Amino acid sequence: MDRIRRNERLAAMSRILVESPNKIFTLGTFCEMFGAAKSTLSEDIDILRGVFSQFNLGQLDTVTGAAGGVRYRPIPSAEDAYRCVKDLSRMLSSPGRLLPSGFLYMADVLAMPDIVARMGAIIASQFYRAEPDFVLTMETKGIPIAMMTAKALGVPLVIVRRDSKVYEGPAVNINYLSGSGGKVETMSLSRRAVKEGQRALIVDDFMRAGGTARGMVDMMREFAVTVVGVCVMISTQEPVKKRLDGVRSLLVIENTDENTSSVNIHPASWLQVAAEKART
Amino acid sequence: MDRIRRNERLAAMSRILVESPNKIFTLGTFCEMFGAAKSTLSEDIDILRGVFSQFNLGQLDTVTGAAGGVRYRPIPSAEDAYRCVKDLSRMLSSPGRLLPSGFLYMADVLAMPDIVARMGAIIASQFYRAEPDFVLTMETKGIPIAMMTAKALGVPLVIVRRDSKVYEGPAVNINYLSGSGGKVETMSLSRRAVKEGQRALIVDDFMRAGGTARGMVDMMREFAVTVVGVCVMISTQEPVKKRLDGVRSLLVIENTDENTSSVNIHPASWLQVAAEKART
Repeated sequence: MDRIRRNERLAAMSRILVESPNKIFTLGTFCEMFGAAKSTLSEDIDILRGVFSQFNLGQLDTVTGAAGGVRYRPIPSAEDAYRCVKDLSRMLSSPGRLLPSGFLYMADVLAMPDIVARMGAIIASQFYRAEPDFVLTMETKGIPIAMMTAKALGVPLVIVRRDSKVYEGPAVNINYLSGSGGKVETMSLSRRAVKEGQRALIVDDFMRAGGTARGMVDMMREFAVTVVGVCVMISTQEPVKKRLDGVRSLLVIENTDENTSSVNIHPASWLQVAAEKART
Repeated sequence: MDRIRRNERLAAMSRILVESPNKIFTLGTFCEMFGAAKSTLSEDIDILRGVFSQFNLGQLDTVTGAAGGVRYRPIPSAEDAYRCVKDLSRMLSSPGRLLPSGFLYMADVLAMPDIVARMGAIIASQFYRAEPDFVLTMETKGIPIAMMTAKALGVPLVIVRRDSKVYEGPAVNINYLSGSGGKVETMSLSRRAVKEGQRALIVDDFMRAGGTARGMVDMMREFAVTVVGVCVMISTQEPVKKRLDGVRSLLVIENTDENTSSVNIHPASWLQVAAEKART
């Protein structure tokens, strides 16, 4: 093999690290791949770290210890995160999105790869330290954003179903009070899906009263799994008292006015506070 | 701003291109970002292209014309694609996956970000030339793989529902014959989801007789949308005659033996043929 130059190594390493977020690559992996010495690769990584930081392209960490190496996390700066969520709030506030039923049409936005990847990275950035083993969501609309959160965290996604399926094997079913009018509904999760003692991050697209998220928390208790966090893309201002405490959301809907077809959506205050703090 | 060196530019460009597959970035975008001349950036892109090609990291194309620029496509080599699908077939063939019901448990694999991202890239690589405007799938299990296909293609995902939802607005409902026993089922798609004259790529996780995929094709006809391709992750050998022709699949299940709990899954022959052709 020809000798690989530094700029070529950097380009290749950048591509490899970015495609597998939060995965630890040992220096040995890269030594073998490029036929370079560890000291050389250490310098490469310092350069990469500097570039990513300078252009707000995410964070490169060196992990020490036996399982040590280098890993990439697509953590946006607080200002970028806020700007990104602000842009989304404008997109969702367009009057045409308010359906005659009073609901907001968001199915398209929830399945635009660029947007959900960015939202997933913002959510993930809040929970790296909590070290979840998997991301949990309830079918259907939240799956893309939960999937992208899982990708950014480098962990699997687990999907709770509305009813048990023959192709998922023995399952645990629980009943829960759904947000809209306190109707009793069922959710189901395959017994194989998660293991006792694991740590779950719950991610969903939308929360009103918090009934579904509460159901997922209860479901995790049945599996003896610890819930390390709950994060939704949008929550409603009302009711102020949710069925679950400590839920993070990226966006808040204040109210919808069906007469003027207007809707008031803004980034959650924690995003704004973080952005302002970063500026000073 | 300090002058950015070539190796720094290459690392940053690699990260930016890889995160937005199939999106065309003009040279001007990068000129502005790095304060470098177009001729310099052209050289950078030649180097990037060479590195990506040498290490099988995907394909960098220069697009000429008014909307010209450079774009990244995560196209694996034929050998890598085959190896990747072969690995997956081994994983799915493990005896413990055969459920008492005779079904194969795959929910975990279908939601492992690394695996679905790779499968999505393999599927996408077959359809760049067909230029789909969106990827269509039916809820639920196929969503992650369809999402990752959509990301690799740089187009939105559209999700067909089992029944219409108030939060998706007016919808078109159609009936279709489901594979298992020819039961009549309903699928529903929001009228806002797609536009007349667009081009759809249908992606799903599993196909037996092809009833669901056929339903999605019929649904697209209702919207005056052209279907440019249908691809599933796994199809069954039987029935040989599907309700739909020209369907690609990555994996084929030959048979399952409930007595020995064994199942025979292998990569589809077109993947093997392409890999062998590449080797010679």
